[in-house]
Amino acid sequence: MNTWFSELQTHNVSLGLKIEDVLWREKTPYQELAVLQTEAYGRMLVLDGAIQTTSLDEFVYHEMIAHVPLLLHPNPRKVAVIGGGDGGAIREILQHTGIEEAHLIEIDERVVDASKRFFPDIAKGLQDDRTHVHFTDGIAWVKQARNFDVILVDSTDPVGPAEGLFVPEFYQSIYDALSEDGIMVAQSESPFLEPDIIQRVINGVSQAFPVTRLYLASVPTYPSGLWSFTLGAKKALQLPRQVPLKTRYWTPEIQKSCFHLPVFVEELIR
Amino acid sequence: MNTWFSELQTHNVSLGLKIEDVLWREKTPYQELAVLQTEAYGRMLVLDGAIQTTSLDEFVYHEMIAHVPLLLHPNPRKVAVIGGGDGGAIREILQHTGIEEAHLIEIDERVVDASKRFFPDIAKGLQDDRTHVHFTDGIAWVKQARNFDVILVDSTDPVGPAEGLFVPEFYQSIYDALSEDGIMVAQSESPFLEPDIIQRVINGVSQAFPVTRLYLASVPTYPSGLWSFTLGAKKALQLPRQVPLKTRYWTPEIQKSCFHLPVFVEELIR
Repeated sequence: MNTWFSELQTHNVSLGLKIEDVLWREKTPYQELAVLQTEAYGRMLVLDGAIQTTSLDEFVYHEMIAHVPLLLHPNPRKVAVIGGGDGGAIREILQHTGIEEAHLIEIDERVVDASKRFFPDIAKGLQDDRTHVHFTDGIAWVKQARNFDVILVDSTDPVGPAEGLFVPEFYQSIYDALSEDGIMVAQSESPFLEPDIIQRVINGVSQAFPVTRLYLASVPTYPSGLWSFTLGAKKALQLPRQVPLKTRYWTPEIQKSCFHLPVFVEELIR
Repeated sequence: MNTWFSELQTHNVSLGLKIEDVLWREKTPYQELAVLQTEAYGRMLVLDGAIQTTSLDEFVYHEMIAHVPLLLHPNPRKVAVIGGGDGGAIREILQHTGIEEAHLIEIDERVVDASKRFFPDIAKGLQDDRTHVHFTDGIAWVKQARNFDVILVDSTDPVGPAEGLFVPEFYQSIYDALSEDGIMVAQSESPFLEPDIIQRVINGVSQAFPVTRLYLASVPTYPSGLWSFTLGAKKALQLPRQVPLKTRYWTPEIQKSCFHLPVFVEELIR
């Protein structure tokens, strides 16, 4: 059978993936959730028609959203992930031996359930003793959170439930929830296809944080294949710590070179 | 009107682009050539259904295939491009002030004609006094070429007319055509979607050249968005020369960091 999934990545760009099977499909209280078996990228989690994660390329995004800020923090012990219900960021965070608490704040319990069932390798950190899962709204949760070392915003696109995760007030709440060496990272879309979102996130984060940086990674199932992450820090960044990590994308060299931006991206955020 | 172009990038991955117009379409002696006006990426050259270049992202590929090797050569004066009939690599080569001869060896004259007509900004170097265009088979041409400083293989995918540009004998011919400090670069497809092609090119180039390196760049309209280039050098590579260049992707930092490969790519070519 010749069956394809197609994601409208922007109004004029689409990615098509041949699928072997539709493994799950449901309407949650927040969004439409589907799990598909693709030929090229293995299992794939789709929310409201947008690819969130696939078995074969998830390592890029999860390693890069987690390790880059954790290695720039002098001693991360208490970390939170807003969104990221698949658990991939938590899995990577737990590689860092100093971690005492890893909190996942996911609004949609069904995403976590689907990940545990269909993506056990991605979700495996959710069973760890150090992991605390909160099924609640990330915006409200951050307002009462305090003394976190690192907070990651592993959100969907800024439409639907994630819209409030792309506004300056939210970044200010994250600032207040961080301890004095605190660092945040938010996924901030593609410089090729969504330059205005990068500008919005950079501007919002820099209103709250004295240090703001952008870094990039190649995620083939995300629009354009080039993805950005916006980092905010309360203090000047030190050289990254060197710790052994089991990775498939991240290397000590990429820790530094991911901040070396193409000219057109530098111009975008200047 | 809601009209889309779709490229089957592999047998199970496709990229769709909304188009405004079909500007040109012809069957040349070698391939099917089309020029489309896309909404997201501007004008686009398509050969046998595969995207070759677009107005809005061509700068990445052309800057990266040209500047990286030219800056690693101590004094490039005589350079050749095999394929690359759009002229984009030639345009970038001509930014280097020491260039005396830039040769383009394109089998299909209709590609050059279409580029001059529909992509004047990309093709502009083809009118330069230093440029020599040869409408002939690249494999035969390289066999008689001598004393080139840098040779770039700016080919289509290894099906159809470009098949002979992906075999060890061809890389040996390039070695023989290069002077003693000579460097070659060949585009070598996507590490995510065509790992076997990268391995084939790396193996072939390393049979002829004592120094072989792989580097990467983000090209959104190429499969997976992450593209590889295989570099072969006759001598150990020196630090890149520093010269002023007008670029939109390449920077002096990217000149170095493009060689910092993700773990899974390192494993692929080990």
